[in-house]
Amino acid sequence: MEKIKNYIEENKQRFLDELFDLIRIPSISSLEANKPDMYRAAEYWKKAILEAGADKAEIFETEGNPVTYGEKIIDPALPTVLVYGHMDVMPVDPLELWDSPPFEPEIRDGKIYARGADDDKGQAYMHAKAFELMVKTDTLPCNVKFMIEGEEEIGSPNLGKWCEQNKEMLKADIILVSDTGMIAPDIPSITTGLRGLTYVEVKVTGPNKDLHSGIFGGAVANPINVLSEMIGKLTDEDGKITIPGFYDKVEVLSTEERTEMAKAPFSLSEYEKALDLTEVSGEKGYSTNERTGIRPALDVNGIWGGYIGEGAKTVLPSIAQAKISMRLVPHQDNEEIAELIKDYLTKIAPTSVKVEVEFLHGGQGYVSPTNMTAYLAADKAYSESFGKKPIPVRSGGSIPIISTFEKVLGIKSILMGFGLESDAIHSPNENYPLFNFYKGIETIPLFYKHYAEMMKK
Amino acid sequence: MEKIKNYIEENKQRFLDELFDLIRIPSISSLEANKPDMYRAAEYWKKAILEAGADKAEIFETEGNPVTYGEKIIDPALPTVLVYGHMDVMPVDPLELWDSPPFEPEIRDGKIYARGADDDKGQAYMHAKAFELMVKTDTLPCNVKFMIEGEEEIGSPNLGKWCEQNKEMLKADIILVSDTGMIAPDIPSITTGLRGLTYVEVKVTGPNKDLHSGIFGGAVANPINVLSEMIGKLTDEDGKITIPGFYDKVEVLSTEERTEMAKAPFSLSEYEKALDLTEVSGEKGYSTNERTGIRPALDVNGIWGGYIGEGAKTVLPSIAQAKISMRLVPHQDNEEIAELIKDYLTKIAPTSVKVEVEFLHGGQGYVSPTNMTAYLAADKAYSESFGKKPIPVRSGGSIPIISTFEKVLGIKSILMGFGLESDAIHSPNENYPLFNFYKGIETIPLFYKHYAEMMKK
Repeated sequence: MEKIKNYIEENKQRFLDELFDLIRIPSISSLEANKPDMYRAAEYWKKAILEAGADKAEIFETEGNPVTYGEKIIDPALPTVLVYGHMDVMPVDPLELWDSPPFEPEIRDGKIYARGADDDKGQAYMHAKAFELMVKTDTLPCNVKFMIEGEEEIGSPNLGKWCEQNKEMLKADIILVSDTGMIAPDIPSITTGLRGLTYVEVKVTGPNKDLHSGIFGGAVANPINVLSEMIGKLTDEDGKITIPGFYDKVEVLSTEERTEMAKAPFSLSEYEKALDLTEVSGEKGYSTNERTGIRPALDVNGIWGGYIGEGAKTVLPSIAQAKISMRLVPHQDNEEIAELIKDYLTKIAPTSVKVEVEFLHGGQGYVSPTNMTAYLAADKAYSESFGKKPIPVRSGGSIPIISTFEKVLGIKSILMGFGLESDAIHSPNENYPLFNFYKGIETIPLFYKHYAEMMKK
Repeated sequence: MEKIKNYIEENKQRFLDELFDLIRIPSISSLEANKPDMYRAAEYWKKAILEAGADKAEIFETEGNPVTYGEKIIDPALPTVLVYGHMDVMPVDPLELWDSPPFEPEIRDGKIYARGADDDKGQAYMHAKAFELMVKTDTLPCNVKFMIEGEEEIGSPNLGKWCEQNKEMLKADIILVSDTGMIAPDIPSITTGLRGLTYVEVKVTGPNKDLHSGIFGGAVANPINVLSEMIGKLTDEDGKITIPGFYDKVEVLSTEERTEMAKAPFSLSEYEKALDLTEVSGEKGYSTNERTGIRPALDVNGIWGGYIGEGAKTVLPSIAQAKISMRLVPHQDNEEIAELIKDYLTKIAPTSVKVEVEFLHGGQGYVSPTNMTAYLAADKAYSESFGKKPIPVRSGGSIPIISTFEKVLGIKSILMGFGLESDAIHSPNENYPLFNFYKGIETIPLFYKHYAEMMKK
């Protein structure tokens, strides 16, 4: 423990400088124009892993963005930890809402402000530095492998196949991931569940060109009105999703489980205040944490159509479009749900318009048991670094690849996230507190220590 | 008649060249950046009216865009025709759908392609040239006044006040307007009714910033979902508008009147084919022409919110917005309707979001009798130039200022429109057939002739 703290203290500024260089690479995976940046990020990771002490590191091509892989095998008889992280980030718009340029990290009030500061550059880079720390202080207790991908924010479309092709190389006992959050700055938590995701784009076409709304209004179906009505029909007044079959496979939790989860500290008034909400909203019969943790949800992520400029234009547009995503819970299959929503949208559309539904991306949900060795080791590590036992939580977010890892590689994941809800990931002014960055680097070696010890028994 | 045709034939190309120069001024009234172009257009009109033979012409300032006024008083005892037109045009986006630059007029297949080619530069300029023709051929039978404004496309917010201030100057027996359409290229028609307009912008605010839809989805009201639901609730399954009180003052037409109107030639299959529609859509119990002619309508003219770029972004946005307009029929008051929709939207919004409704612009509907002198004169004029009796029609469009003229100046308008439905006004590739342009210049002097003769009796 002393050794860890000293090493961090001595290298504090360098750790940060290195992370900043990584952040400055605008590796937005959803934009074709940033493709070269994905390769720059992959190179950066290769160098980082090697300099931290890996035996070797390599950039692998996929059909999409590259994957950086590296390893240090100290003894094949020892357990192996496979670190997973991602080098890609979300787009930055609306740019005008950022207080500082998204790819020029800046420290304000003890927080790093930048796209990727938390998700996932800040969190993933803690692992590079924790690994370096163990190598340089001669405390590495097991083998380590790194797998840093470049397509997490677009649903990891190629990593599953890549894992399939490199199964032997990726053999490990546990996958270690920091890409989730903790309940509060002083309340460590371990994510034991993730929601799945189905993301579609809907296009409604009415007349073959934009029309004058005076001359045609009332006689020709308006695709914006139609799309709005269709979206309105996706949920009912109780906040239930109305797509037939949608809830068929939803995992039902026992009263005991729900009572246990309700013990996690949570202040509804603070939650509402932080978001300037008069009140929360969601599925009837469930608490806020249940609505995001154990229940599915449907959100329109974007909508557009017609005239959206200044002033008034009396147009009856030809096309209206929306991006709609659903968060899924264990046992719901994302591809099946994609079919269900496609069928439903097609069914409820009036015959006066044409409807196209495109499946953009998706992933399965994930649950991990709280009695597996990695969970117990993480529990010990947090207890030491924070002086407090971590709380197991079901997160509302999705890391689609986690369930793929289990399916393809047969390896469970332990989700040691250090982010905070206030980090504004995916939003303008994303940030990551320096405290969390350094606390992560401190906690990770403790996990390795306890995990290696427990695996010996 | 011979005189008219000869004069047009001799000056054909010059008429067109002059119109093209006017079109090249990008006088978009809804964009602040184009303000200087409004003054260029006003100067152009001043010069045009003077050169055509007016005694005087002047540019008047208003709180908004300028008005060009000009007149030729040949004998105060003779009747006076007040020509109204507008120099402003609609925005041009989506620009990528234009086959040629919107402000560089081009002739293809006998049509002028440009923004304003029809609405209203092409149609208004016919009056300048018809006036010139009568002056130069010494056939002007009455006094003429021109009033060309620069804010028609944004609802003429300042012209009513300007008319009030210049009542004496504007005294006339009839207002002559070409800003509407005809049924078909070979079927002349006179517009006897216009719909009113109420145009609002709605803003729904949920959380105070864009959120991650995984972490918050299901627990926080999504403003796009909410706005869509609200829009869906504005109409019912029969295509009726559900805003309480909306239909209270709607003019009810007798079966006889509806039967008479149904005689206008109309092919539903051609209408559907021209717009690539499987079928039309609208209020139950009414025909397509009735839906646009005698019934009100509600259209979302634009909607936007969340992520609208390439690919998938899992955002739960802070804000969603829409532009919504309603076409009104006689007796519906546009300001009253604005209050009704504002109240209704506020009422149906869930308490989990904040809703703001802004009244962008509006105008009253208008009906003109088919037995007034100007109508009878126009009927004769069309019968001579087209060899066919014109059909009286109720147009779905709005020219809000027409009802204001009646209220403020106490003068009726005669709407002699020469546009076609295929002119794509307000849309990309707006166009105006050369045939219609020249036919207008031919018909207008005939109207003056018959009107002056009939007023003598």
